[in-house]
Amino acid sequence: MTIEALHGAVDLGGSHVGLALGVVDAAAGEFRLVARRDLEGGGYDGWQTVLDRIAEGMLELAREVGEPPAAIGVGCPGWVDLEQGETRFLPNLPGQWRDVPVARLLGERLEAPVHLLNDVRAATLGEFTFGAGRGTSTMALFALGTGIGGGVVVDGRLRLGPLGSAGELGHQIVDPGGPLCGCGARGCLEAVASGPAIAAAGVRLLRSGQAPALFDLSAGDAGRVTAETMGEAAAAGDEAVTKELERIAGLVGIAAANVVVTLHPELIVLGGGVAGLGDVLFDGVRRTIADRVRVFPTDGVRVEPAALGTDAGLAGVLAWAASRRGAGLGLHRDHG
Amino acid sequence: MTIEALHGAVDLGGSHVGLALGVVDAAAGEFRLVARRDLEGGGYDGWQTVLDRIAEGMLELAREVGEPPAAIGVGCPGWVDLEQGETRFLPNLPGQWRDVPVARLLGERLEAPVHLLNDVRAATLGEFTFGAGRGTSTMALFALGTGIGGGVVVDGRLRLGPLGSAGELGHQIVDPGGPLCGCGARGCLEAVASGPAIAAAGVRLLRSGQAPALFDLSAGDAGRVTAETMGEAAAAGDEAVTKELERIAGLVGIAAANVVVTLHPELIVLGGGVAGLGDVLFDGVRRTIADRVRVFPTDGVRVEPAALGTDAGLAGVLAWAASRRGAGLGLHRDHG
Repeated sequence: MTIEALHGAVDLGGSHVGLALGVVDAAAGEFRLVARRDLEGGGYDGWQTVLDRIAEGMLELAREVGEPPAAIGVGCPGWVDLEQGETRFLPNLPGQWRDVPVARLLGERLEAPVHLLNDVRAATLGEFTFGAGRGTSTMALFALGTGIGGGVVVDGRLRLGPLGSAGELGHQIVDPGGPLCGCGARGCLEAVASGPAIAAAGVRLLRSGQAPALFDLSAGDAGRVTAETMGEAAAAGDEAVTKELERIAGLVGIAAANVVVTLHPELIVLGGGVAGLGDVLFDGVRRTIADRVRVFPTDGVRVEPAALGTDAGLAGVLAWAASRRGAGLGLHRDHG
Repeated sequence: MTIEALHGAVDLGGSHVGLALGVVDAAAGEFRLVARRDLEGGGYDGWQTVLDRIAEGMLELAREVGEPPAAIGVGCPGWVDLEQGETRFLPNLPGQWRDVPVARLLGERLEAPVHLLNDVRAATLGEFTFGAGRGTSTMALFALGTGIGGGVVVDGRLRLGPLGSAGELGHQIVDPGGPLCGCGARGCLEAVASGPAIAAAGVRLLRSGQAPALFDLSAGDAGRVTAETMGEAAAAGDEAVTKELERIAGLVGIAAANVVVTLHPELIVLGGGVAGLGDVLFDGVRRTIADRVRVFPTDGVRVEPAALGTDAGLAGVLAWAASRRGAGLGLHRDHG
């Protein structure tokens, strides 16, 4: 592994903030985190406090390792202005993060260039460079969690678009008359297949008496129904739960099928907590692609789980920071 | 205009075959057809006869111009093997065109390399290089006709994928429980917004007495109801027809919105006969994108008509032939 330089990675989340120092060898598809630390979430204390914690944490890590990072990548849950290095709209993060000049403020504290990127685009870049997508050229990632994010790599380049917002695969319309999404539109994949949407389907089954195993697992408490307990209830024999999960997997499959006809990728990666549902999800997505894409053969399109888990985002922003320093990852940058 | 060399273009269609000789200056975004000829369609006489006519026509054009083409591009209505230069599946073309080695057979007759490309990918390349997409970097084209084809250009490259089939935007699922499509899947855009689908909506209105203007325009004959007469009936005051066209424009808009969230292109081009519907279509697509894409601002995404009409395909295969000769268009070629 050719170590270019030490880089910093920040994964800014609502419930926790991940920090790391690491090295990447993008050509070899390898990265290593040499130091890491988890902080409290990017939450209710306001962004100033959170940025202070991040700067202090990163400086401490650099002291421990004995070397400052050459550049720092920051993954943010929402829309960020890549060129200005400012947050624009981070809907799931409390603390008034609108138009915060994170790159300038952190850059001054850390005395190194700071580069922002949407967190799921970062995870996509991480999986593409180091994880499930190693060796592929065109892939898409769906991050299935509380929300549904995504990212696409086309011909070896992370597609960003002018706002860094390309790849928002969770906001494809898969059910035109469907429920309202958090984004304000109707029928988005996120509105029907996110963790909360799966839990809602479970609550309905629970209350209508169709899911005895789910009832036992949740002690009849709707507040304890999650995508995870839905998976457990299906495994424990609740047929209605299995059917609901198959229906929801089919909706993810429609979104995946739309990406397949548009880009014909080699690989669709499913990550995030909901991907823990396993076979019922992956088989459903594969079946839907086979069933719904008839216009050309899709045998070559693999549907695989993410390989890096929660490290995908850290690895991705490391790669992002390295590429923005001109380390030659060949990433797309038409956002200028 | 820097003329590199004379190239040949063939647009293989069911009702007619277009032939041309021309020159391209891709960098300047200019092309010129120096000679052209229309032949009978690629139809019922069998592929051997059609290829004979194409070869003879092209040789005659070369004699007229006094110069043979350096390479020939052939646009085909369906799935072609780009590397092998063979047709694979041309569903709307009679004459048993499965697995015909067009590049070899025509190449032997014309003593020049022959390069196949799907006809709508060719039109996309034509519009991108010389037409509505000049100056853009990322765009998508919907060819709305008897079928619905498409193409995408990402970061300046025509996206083809391993089979040359990426960009089949008409086979996105926009109505999961909707009607059966010609491709065998259910709920594709093509099944609900193609010329025949629009005509079918008109026939229903005609027969249920909701469209007096359409009745007059078609003399009450269902066989004379087309997308064009639907447009005329709407203009003549049939409110039910207008509402149906708005509903259908909304479905095209959903497919366009899915492309927008996936790729955030600068431009969506609508071409083909159905694009002749004009404002009711274009306004509907623009409104749907604004309404359905809330996750990031889409003011920068233009929705425009194709600029080159039926020449887009000829211009596109000229550019394709030139680029495959290595003339440096920078086109994507991961189909090897």
